[in-house]
Amino acid sequence: MTDNEISTAEPECSGVGLVQPKDLVFRAPFEFELGGVIPSFTLRYETYGTLNADRSNAILVCHALSGDHHVAGRHEQGERKAGWWDAFTGPGRALDTERYFVIGVNCLGGCRGSTGPGSENPATGAPYYLDFPQLTMRDMVRAQRELARALGITRLHAVIGGSMGGMQGLVWAVDYPDFVRNVVPLACAARQNPQAIAFNEVGRRAIMGDPRWRNGRYPADDPPRNGLAVARMLGHITYLSPQRVEEKFGRTRTQVASPEPFGAEFEVESYLTHKGSTFVERFDANAYLYITKAADRFDLAGGAPLESVFAPVKARVTVIGFSSDWLYPPAENHAVADALLRAGKQDTRYVEIETNAGHDAFLLPSKELVNTIRTAIA
Amino acid sequence: MTDNEISTAEPECSGVGLVQPKDLVFRAPFEFELGGVIPSFTLRYETYGTLNADRSNAILVCHALSGDHHVAGRHEQGERKAGWWDAFTGPGRALDTERYFVIGVNCLGGCRGSTGPGSENPATGAPYYLDFPQLTMRDMVRAQRELARALGITRLHAVIGGSMGGMQGLVWAVDYPDFVRNVVPLACAARQNPQAIAFNEVGRRAIMGDPRWRNGRYPADDPPRNGLAVARMLGHITYLSPQRVEEKFGRTRTQVASPEPFGAEFEVESYLTHKGSTFVERFDANAYLYITKAADRFDLAGGAPLESVFAPVKARVTVIGFSSDWLYPPAENHAVADALLRAGKQDTRYVEIETNAGHDAFLLPSKELVNTIRTAIA
Repeated sequence: MTDNEISTAEPECSGVGLVQPKDLVFRAPFEFELGGVIPSFTLRYETYGTLNADRSNAILVCHALSGDHHVAGRHEQGERKAGWWDAFTGPGRALDTERYFVIGVNCLGGCRGSTGPGSENPATGAPYYLDFPQLTMRDMVRAQRELARALGITRLHAVIGGSMGGMQGLVWAVDYPDFVRNVVPLACAARQNPQAIAFNEVGRRAIMGDPRWRNGRYPADDPPRNGLAVARMLGHITYLSPQRVEEKFGRTRTQVASPEPFGAEFEVESYLTHKGSTFVERFDANAYLYITKAADRFDLAGGAPLESVFAPVKARVTVIGFSSDWLYPPAENHAVADALLRAGKQDTRYVEIETNAGHDAFLLPSKELVNTIRTAIA
Repeated sequence: MTDNEISTAEPECSGVGLVQPKDLVFRAPFEFELGGVIPSFTLRYETYGTLNADRSNAILVCHALSGDHHVAGRHEQGERKAGWWDAFTGPGRALDTERYFVIGVNCLGGCRGSTGPGSENPATGAPYYLDFPQLTMRDMVRAQRELARALGITRLHAVIGGSMGGMQGLVWAVDYPDFVRNVVPLACAARQNPQAIAFNEVGRRAIMGDPRWRNGRYPADDPPRNGLAVARMLGHITYLSPQRVEEKFGRTRTQVASPEPFGAEFEVESYLTHKGSTFVERFDANAYLYITKAADRFDLAGGAPLESVFAPVKARVTVIGFSSDWLYPPAENHAVADALLRAGKQDTRYVEIETNAGHDAFLLPSKELVNTIRTAIA
């Protein structure tokens, strides 16, 4: 990692401080794109900054696969980790909370407070499990729009997000052209490529092959930990570039040899194992299945020329790619901007950030990225 | 796949026909590089062509992770699949059995006939399980040399192999410089890179997280199928280039929708699932652990400059890389040849084959590859 990448953009800023998540309960049926309906749903969200009088300064931040509503700040004093995009969010930061009202929301189908397969099915009193309807990006975005409306917002200043969050930004631009002024998709494509589908499928097979999965009907205190940990380990590899893995770990051996046969022998192994085992403490295996499937189904144009679906777009779109992202490679990011331009959307920009950090580069506040975002929403 | 890639080099040739594997039992202790000893061992092998009078025309073909001794021909009349390098091996083919005596051998530690963790431990009468000593490439190569000697060969005309087989070729060149005239490593590197270690570790965690693994002491008829299938699915993704996955599957949906929740929805998913489920019928999970670990430990120079270990090399070495191989990328293949040249080994060549096929390109008999091999062993 270069110095540029690890330096936060404005180290002097103190960030948004302590924050509290909120729940909004929607007491109306939600119909899913692929069929199925739930009688009501909850979205957990956080906000930072103040909504202005004409409600025109709201920015929605859409999270990636394993992210959530906790974009910035801390829930408790002294908490070690801040929200996942804290370095980008706060007074004077890229999403300047002195100017903007920033919203983070856990996606529908998730497991961090919003309604998902682990939530109670009012019809049975038990979790939905696999009775939760199949999910798409459009479902998640439509639920986000309900939240914005409930907050009194009829037009978002910007929708921004990386990876799956970027896909949602594109859906916003296409489905709700009058609702969004600026869209900033980072490290994403207009369709899930088949290699990414393949990686997700391996993760799902690991979960579903774990006997503790029990066809999805596992008790909350005995989930398919092994399967989910394997899925997460694999995910992590795809988020790092090979150069980054080389720099970060190389072939360095673990300091203490594992007493287990076939225990971790190299640092990269113990890192991944740790990532896997901590993930299962905060993520639900069924939600992982639903959300990865929603990502895999994502194909904005469904095989048609991409420019054809961009006709309705009114937002200014700034697509940001990262040179070493091999999960959604720059060529795929770039193709989004090219198609927008072909569709006559002149207010489109493509910026490629040179970095070794791979897909996860969208989480690292390099000066170039921070400045690109500032310009994209200015 | 281009036409060039799918055409076999000499479609008019009939190949080596029916073949029989043979077992050679070595009734002497084998000491492993990392410690541990087994009192005797068996190597299963096949040969094609005839050893000449001065025993100077033998070519050893080293297999990759999931390969075996069955390089060419068929075991039964009408068998659908021939040996894994059949297209390269036979009268008039790259390894011309009218000129050469070609040897395929299952690696020590394997599960296809050679002694490995699933073989009977004479001390207990039960399988070795995890009492089988930890394994390295050097162990496999030393066992191969025992086989060559037992066949009356004191110098091999060539050692050739792809992936892990290529690593073994490099060990041959370094450890037994007087025993090998030509070495042809394909799609391999002088060290396992940490991303490759990471992928293998995910596969191992999938196996070891499968409760049927039972700390390695599973009955032969109830192995950790789920875990091994997941490991294999993941391996397969790394053997294909993203371009190849795109060409071969794209986002094509399965013809028949799966009745299972989260069943295969895309062709790429059902392909991988099929690959996983057929693999478990022919491969032992513990052997997968041992062999991937041996590959992960492979680091010819152990951190020293690579050229320093190449001083003893006497063989002509032709390193072959494939442009779209991202598991052992061309830069890593090329680095091997560069280091040999820096070590003063002028009889070194690097050839990079332009292909979309990814790592598995070493299995596809393009004209260019066939001709490169011919030249490398001429």
